[in-house]
This record gives sequence, C-alpha cells and structure tokens, in this order.
Amino acid sequence: MSDLTLAVDIGGTKFAAGLVEPDGQVVAAERVATPQGADDETLWRTLTALLDRLDVPTALAGVGIGCGGPMTWPEGEVSPLNMGGWSGFPLRGRLAARFPGVPVRIHNDAICLAVAEHWCGAGRGSAAMLGMVVSTGVGGGLILGGRLIDGGTGNAGHIGHVVVDPEGPPCGCGGNGCLEAIARGPGLAAWALAQGWSPGDAVTEGDLYREEGTATARRLAADAAAGDPIALAAMARAGRALGVAIASAVNLCDLDLVTVGGGLSQAGDLLFRPLEEALREHTRMGFAGRVRVVPAALGQDAGLVGAAALVIAGDRYWSPGI
Amino acid sequence: MSDLTLAVDIGGTKFAAGLVEPDGQVVAAERVATPQGADDETLWRTLTALLDRLDVPTALAGVGIGCGGPMTWPEGEVSPLNMGGWSGFPLRGRLAARFPGVPVRIHNDAICLAVAEHWCGAGRGSAAMLGMVVSTGVGGGLILGGRLIDGGTGNAGHIGHVVVDPEGPPCGCGGNGCLEAIARGPGLAAWALAQGWSPGDAVTEGDLYREEGTATARRLAADAAAGDPIALAAMARAGRALGVAIASAVNLCDLDLVTVGGGLSQAGDLLFRPLEEALREHTRMGFAGRVRVVPAALGQDAGLVGAAALVIAGDRYWSPGI
Repeated sequence: MSDLTLAVDIGGTKFAAGLVEPDGQVVAAERVATPQGADDETLWRTLTALLDRLDVPTALAGVGIGCGGPMTWPEGEVSPLNMGGWSGFPLRGRLAARFPGVPVRIHNDAICLAVAEHWCGAGRGSAAMLGMVVSTGVGGGLILGGRLIDGGTGNAGHIGHVVVDPEGPPCGCGGNGCLEAIARGPGLAAWALAQGWSPGDAVTEGDLYREEGTATARRLAADAAAGDPIALAAMARAGRALGVAIASAVNLCDLDLVTVGGGLSQAGDLLFRPLEEALREHTRMGFAGRVRVVPAALGQDAGLVGAAALVIAGDRYWSPGI
Repeated sequence: MSDLTLAVDIGGTKFAAGLVEPDGQVVAAERVATPQGADDETLWRTLTALLDRLDVPTALAGVGIGCGGPMTWPEGEVSPLNMGGWSGFPLRGRLAARFPGVPVRIHNDAICLAVAEHWCGAGRGSAAMLGMVVSTGVGGGLILGGRLIDGGTGNAGHIGHVVVDPEGPPCGCGGNGCLEAIARGPGLAAWALAQGWSPGDAVTEGDLYREEGTATARRLAADAAAGDPIALAAMARAGRALGVAIASAVNLCDLDLVTVGGGLSQAGDLLFRPLEEALREHTRMGFAGRVRVVPAALGQDAGLVGAAALVIAGDRYWSPGI
C-alpha cells in the first residue's frame, strides 16, 4: 500500500485534487474551474477527468474530501451552495466506489481549512482553536481538546452564523444579523457601494459575486489601503463584526487561538485592528484575554492538506465509524 | 473500597455535600448557609463541619467538587465571585489531603449542573448539548461528541458572555452586551424597576442580591404571570436575549439540545415563548432547526450529582490526568 493520500477540494470556483504525503506535504496537485450551471454528471466527469490528470498510485492510504456545504454527514451526500447541479449527490459514495478498500472521508470545506491550520499551519499545538475563513461566506471549524469537534451533525464551526447584531441585515441563511451577513466579501462590498464607494475599477452589482466575491473584496481592501474613507469604514465594520463574533466564540469555547484566512483576511491591519479592538472589549474575563487571532498560514493547498488530514491524522480529526 | 462518591457543591448561598451512588442517586445530603464575609479558614471549617455531619465511609470511590468560578483548573485553586474569603484557595488540594488515595476532581458549578443534566437529567443521550443555568449569573457547560468539553483552561460553557447586543448594557465581566448583563435575575429585576415596576412585596435595590437574586426574579416571574405589563416585558427581554445567545451557540456548536435551569427558568412559558421565538428567527440553517430547548429536570441535588459524575462517569466528564 502506498503511503500517499488522495485529497479532493470541491468549491464553487474550482475543483482541486492532490496527492499528500504522511507529513502533509502536497506532492502533486491539479486544478480546474468549476463548470458553471453544470448538471450532476457533468460535475462528476469534471472531477474524474481532474483525478485522471494525477498519477494516482493503485494503492492509496485513503481519500479525503473537502466540499462546500450543506451535506449529510458523515455519509457525504452533498448539496453545495452555488452548485445547483449537485443536490444530494453521493460524492463520498462515488469516490468510495472508485477507490475501494481504503477509508474515504469527507467534511465541510471550511472545516478542512481549520484542520489544515491545526495540523500543519498557524494552529499547530493549540488545544482550543477556531479556524476561520472569510470570503464569499464566513465559515470555520472548531478544535477542542486537540480534536476536531463535529457537533451533532458534522456542522460545528459555523461561526458565520453567530449573531453579532440581532437588528442587523438579513443573511443568506434566512436569519438576520449573522456575522456572515455583515462580513462576507460580497455583503461588505455591497454595503460600501450603498455608502457611495466608487471602486478604482468599475464594479457593478453583478461583479460582487464574481470569483466568490474575493475580487471585489480585494479591490475594497486595496482602496482602504489607499485611504478611501468608505473602504476604510467597510473594513472597520467587518473587523468589528468579526471581533464580536470571535469574542462570543472565545467566551463560549475557551479558545487559545483563532486563525483567519480567506480573501478578506488579506486586508491585514485594516481588518485586524478593528477586529482586535472589538475582541478585547468583549473578552474581559481572565481566561478569555489570552486568545490570539492570527492570519492563516497555509496557502492555496490548505483545502487539500485538511482533507488529507481526515485520513492521515484521523485520530485527531475523524470521529465517525466510517 | 466503598462504591460511594462524596460530592461537594460550593456556592455563594449554600454549601452542600452528599454521598452519591454509582447510578447518580444521592443517598445522603447536608446543607449549610454560606457564611457571609467569612475569611478563608472559617469557610474551610464550615465545609469540614458539614462533611462531619455525613456518615462518610472510610473508603470512598472519590470526591467530586463543584464550585463557583473563577478557579485554576484542574488544580482547583478557587476564587469564587461573591466569596471574598477564598482567593486562590486550594480547595481541591485540601480535600485531596483529607481524602488521600482516591481521585479528587473539581469543576465550575455551572459545568457540574450541565454534566448532571446530561448524565441523569433532561440531556440523557444527547451527543451535543448545552446545559444552562439562569440565576444570579448565567452560566453553562458544553457536551459535544457525548463528552464534557473543557476548553483550553476548563472554562468552556460560558454562555453568559456570548454577546447578544454589542451596544448593550455593561456586564460584570467588564464587557458589555453579554447575555448575562441582560438576563441575570438581578439585572432583569433592576431593569424592571427602572421601567417603573412596583413588585407586590416591597423590593429595594439591596434586595436584588438577596438569595442569589432568585427571590426577586421569582417575584418578577410571579408578577408577569399575574399580567403585570412591565414584568411581562422583562421576561420577554430576557427570553429574547437567551434565544439569541442560544442561537449563536447552536450555530457554532451544532447542538441537539439546550437545558435551562436556575431561578428564572421557573417562569415557564413567559420566558420560554420569547426565547423560542428569537431562537427560531436566528437558527435558519437546516441542521440548526432541530435543536430543542427544555427546562432542566433535576432539582436541588443537581450540583451534587454533577460533581459526583466527574468521578463516577469520568470517562465522559473528566479529561485531565489528575
């Protein structure tokens, strides 16, 4: 049996697949743009064609999959947001049939990013950490007692739906005032446009959802760095919302560390300074003051690394029996 | 060796001690009022005198302790709020010296209540639960993956400091807008008084802190039940704050169940109806909709039962090496 693990990372923008060594090093990776508006089998063929481009050994240690939610878990019938072609698609089952005899494990993509940071990135050694991604959506994963926490249905870590303002704007989830409603890239850019922001490059309402919103969020961050007052206010708004939600998570879960990745985190101090300010205002108990918030350390392979960890480091990151 | 466990429950109002059978049944219990303003050794002598009233077998399975926080954990040097005489008092160490050769384990009193509900009460069988107590303070404990979650320093479960309104009233922790700032009994009663509430029995500012605030909260609940509009508004205010904080916890930790105990929970539907309303508004994702919020099932012995569980069911409720 090979000691390589096949890792698969399924997102609304791209599909990625790679071979990962036992120490988390990605030794080969391939990527392809997610076909937009494709049906279920077209999406599946896109994935299998991608896998065919890898030199997958006949014997693998296993297969780890990260995929956008929601999904049934641990069964892995996926219905990713913004990927209408897959609704209840048995992604884990299909890959298990293709790679028989080895563990085939799946988790939410944001959870895989958190696992990656804990296993090989900025969270190494933390006993109690939240790994966050702030991009088109705001997601995360919880590590407590040095182990991935799944929650009752594999959905623990949804920091994006911690309520930061009960009177706040509507959220895609159907609620309102969620962190995600305020801090997701497209929401933030829309808020800035409504305040009169005129981006250096023309940005239209439709563009907000281009490239998972990160293009516009990056533009907003760039304008903030250049001193644009509305862009700065947008970063402060997102930063404070992040700080409040993180404070709630720290107080509830007694966290050592929070890692923040995703497009918006590229804004650096413009985002992290208001974040820290709000966080410190709302973490006044002795134990909570120790928490550190740091940028995620891993780059574009993070999703693959985290997916592989479900297999390679299953003692810490995998609980179900399958 | 006896199969009885000695359980100790230390609060600002009373000290309790009892002998607990392996199935969680309390077979003997003694209580004494907490001496107010007492120094460290007076408090200790009060406890040992209480223990002397129990027929403690010479051999025990162990000793479990619940105590108000904060404390160093798992070492158990306690500095309970509202018990100034104990500041860094080595409660666990003193009891370990008195009962050598058996495990002596300590946890926050709110965590013990959550453990009790999970072990023997309304939370039996839940894989992902938050056990809450709403009284003078608002506290809790988290059970995830069927196990007690400690967090990095034993402080996980502080639901009272989840932020429900970033512009909300100041909290005893130094922050503002925490659930506890709004929903704790004395805070709620103070709010009602400020709105013009005149309780059936004369209540003064000083009375708010009598009996851990529960007397006044019960009076408020009784007036609400009788239709007093300000008392009803106070219950709605607390209920909505509870619902928002619980929603954040459900979304973050993917909970099946929340149990609510403590004085204010006696208000029944007057509290639980607005709680449910706010909770459902803010738990719109598919997985979150399943959560149930129920009253705690155990009575005045719950603290003893939970403390004993740290020893008797340590496989689920005790992680540290000591």
